[in-house]
Amino acid sequence: MEAESAPFTLDDFRLRMERSAQAAAADGLDGLLITPGPDLLWLTGYQPTAITERLTLLVLRVDAEPQLLVPVLERPDAESAVGAGAVAMSDWRDGVDPYEAATPLLSVDGEYAISDSAWAMHLLGLQHRLPETRYVSVTDRLPMLRAVKDDNELARLEAAGAAADAAFGEIVKVRFAGRKETDVAADLARLLREFGHEQVDFTVVGSGPNGANPHHEAGDRAILAGDMIVLDFGGLKHGYGSDTTRTVCAGDPTDQMREVHDIVRAAQQAAFETVRPGVACQEIDRVARRVISEAGYGDEFIHRTGHGIGMTTHEPPYMVEGEQRPLVPGMCFSIEPGIYLAGRFGVRIEDIVTVTADGGHRLNNSDRGLTIVE
Amino acid sequence: MEAESAPFTLDDFRLRMERSAQAAAADGLDGLLITPGPDLLWLTGYQPTAITERLTLLVLRVDAEPQLLVPVLERPDAESAVGAGAVAMSDWRDGVDPYEAATPLLSVDGEYAISDSAWAMHLLGLQHRLPETRYVSVTDRLPMLRAVKDDNELARLEAAGAAADAAFGEIVKVRFAGRKETDVAADLARLLREFGHEQVDFTVVGSGPNGANPHHEAGDRAILAGDMIVLDFGGLKHGYGSDTTRTVCAGDPTDQMREVHDIVRAAQQAAFETVRPGVACQEIDRVARRVISEAGYGDEFIHRTGHGIGMTTHEPPYMVEGEQRPLVPGMCFSIEPGIYLAGRFGVRIEDIVTVTADGGHRLNNSDRGLTIVE
Repeated sequence: MEAESAPFTLDDFRLRMERSAQAAAADGLDGLLITPGPDLLWLTGYQPTAITERLTLLVLRVDAEPQLLVPVLERPDAESAVGAGAVAMSDWRDGVDPYEAATPLLSVDGEYAISDSAWAMHLLGLQHRLPETRYVSVTDRLPMLRAVKDDNELARLEAAGAAADAAFGEIVKVRFAGRKETDVAADLARLLREFGHEQVDFTVVGSGPNGANPHHEAGDRAILAGDMIVLDFGGLKHGYGSDTTRTVCAGDPTDQMREVHDIVRAAQQAAFETVRPGVACQEIDRVARRVISEAGYGDEFIHRTGHGIGMTTHEPPYMVEGEQRPLVPGMCFSIEPGIYLAGRFGVRIEDIVTVTADGGHRLNNSDRGLTIVE
Repeated sequence: MEAESAPFTLDDFRLRMERSAQAAAADGLDGLLITPGPDLLWLTGYQPTAITERLTLLVLRVDAEPQLLVPVLERPDAESAVGAGAVAMSDWRDGVDPYEAATPLLSVDGEYAISDSAWAMHLLGLQHRLPETRYVSVTDRLPMLRAVKDDNELARLEAAGAAADAAFGEIVKVRFAGRKETDVAADLARLLREFGHEQVDFTVVGSGPNGANPHHEAGDRAILAGDMIVLDFGGLKHGYGSDTTRTVCAGDPTDQMREVHDIVRAAQQAAFETVRPGVACQEIDRVARRVISEAGYGDEFIHRTGHGIGMTTHEPPYMVEGEQRPLVPGMCFSIEPGIYLAGRFGVRIEDIVTVTADGGHRLNNSDRGLTIVE
């Protein structure tokens, strides 16, 4: 049994809410509108049992105490959240208009950043009720709100990465050839839980041609001797995410398999070595892409190089062309170049990396060589 | 092993898309914008492995073939969906603006109904890119799109209800007193799976005072002899939902427990007997509420009487004050009045009901009396 992480405290949540309201004001906004999901959990510790059609809304402004509007039947749950001590709570009942209930919390002509994943239905309800208000998404305007992790968050991400590495260390000992992808995926899920994940989010097992589809999960295909197999897996440990990819071969790889694996590994390494404070996010993408393009596979690297990670698997900062914001110590993100040869095989290598004062520090450290499995 | 349901066919999806586009046009809209979630799954059979920040958008119009825009790396998955044969597919790559990619699919000044749970980030992206377009939510404008179930859907909902009833039949045989709520919840989850659910969505075990919090899930509280216990559980079987509630007592109930249970049962029965085509949804709520109010507990019935159910647990039609749309044969929804006595106990009784030509038909038929458990 592993030690629990230190819990986040009321002071943690109070500070996050204050800083977020200040960041919004500094950007010329009247405040932040936060709906259930990772933003709300990070700011208050509150996670409703389900995200539904009923409006829950946290309003953060520099000139007022945080306000949390909840459906009355969810109020006891909301009140039990650690951060509830730092908010003024109000509620609404089924049968009334929740957007009318939200009106007193907003300026009639305010401009607000709203959670990316807020339901369109709720945004439209607010726009309809207060037609002079304006909205931007949190990621569009304040993408760095949750991007820099504190020590407690970093410790959780490091533990999640170590657990994923331990799972990889075990999965390469199981039989691959002759078994279904879904069987190996079930092994991976079991291992992630054994090493302390409370939630398994994805267990990609992409064998042979399925590996050339980056979002293939795991299917009924029986793995063949000689297949390359993309293993991309992760979930939550103590509320923070893991996400790592290794590509293995069931038996002897061909020369092209080795070549493609070497290129992806070199791209991943070059991108990693580029990490340091002040470098633009897009530079990480460019460096990885340059290695792959110069090797002749540029058209087969069909996605961005990485994404931030924290309480969600995908969050800012994104390592993508056009993202000019600089890396800052404490940011955590994936570096995961890949090459996908349609109908044949794919290779991806992915580590979570955090930015330190003088470079990058990997949270995944399992073998990046081409591991041969049975 | 139970028989599988008949799969939905390309013709099913084609017909749903056509009818939906026609419904939008009949309502004066230029079309429907559908994002991943139950709408997209119902219309096309496509469910991305995760709902993420990357835009996936189905555009339905009467004057054009359905158009599906997907991230390029998810295209192989989208193409494998059964309904993909009835859509024209296009894609976008990381690093380009997905809203620009969506522009050719939309009229510059069109009015569209957009999926309730579409991400605010995506709606804002479209509003910013095409400032003359206007939007309403599907539930606000076309709430009945998925509300009337066809025979295949009804058969799945009936099977899900029967499985939930079977789970209730077994759970009342387990020990309650002295065990934690979470232990009973784990039993319930196991039983739902044993009776054919592929997904368990909620297993509420609200004992004693926890039962007075309608959204309490299950906690560490040890159940005491004499406790009332609200059991509200459900999930998906063959892709369609179950959701039923029974309140049991661990030993001898007090007179007030019996009285409150009788009132809730009478309210549930009265509401059920009101179901027939043409009756307004709000009438179902009013009838249940009247019974409870006349018995003196109106202030303790703090939620609407019911919600539609299908591929999601909560969807239109809602049995709530203000919903004046009429019941139509084939609609399926919950009838679930409750009384919540803060700090003491709660009672809720819930069945899924479908509307037939001459009344209502219950999809849950387990004992609605006050069952005594050990």
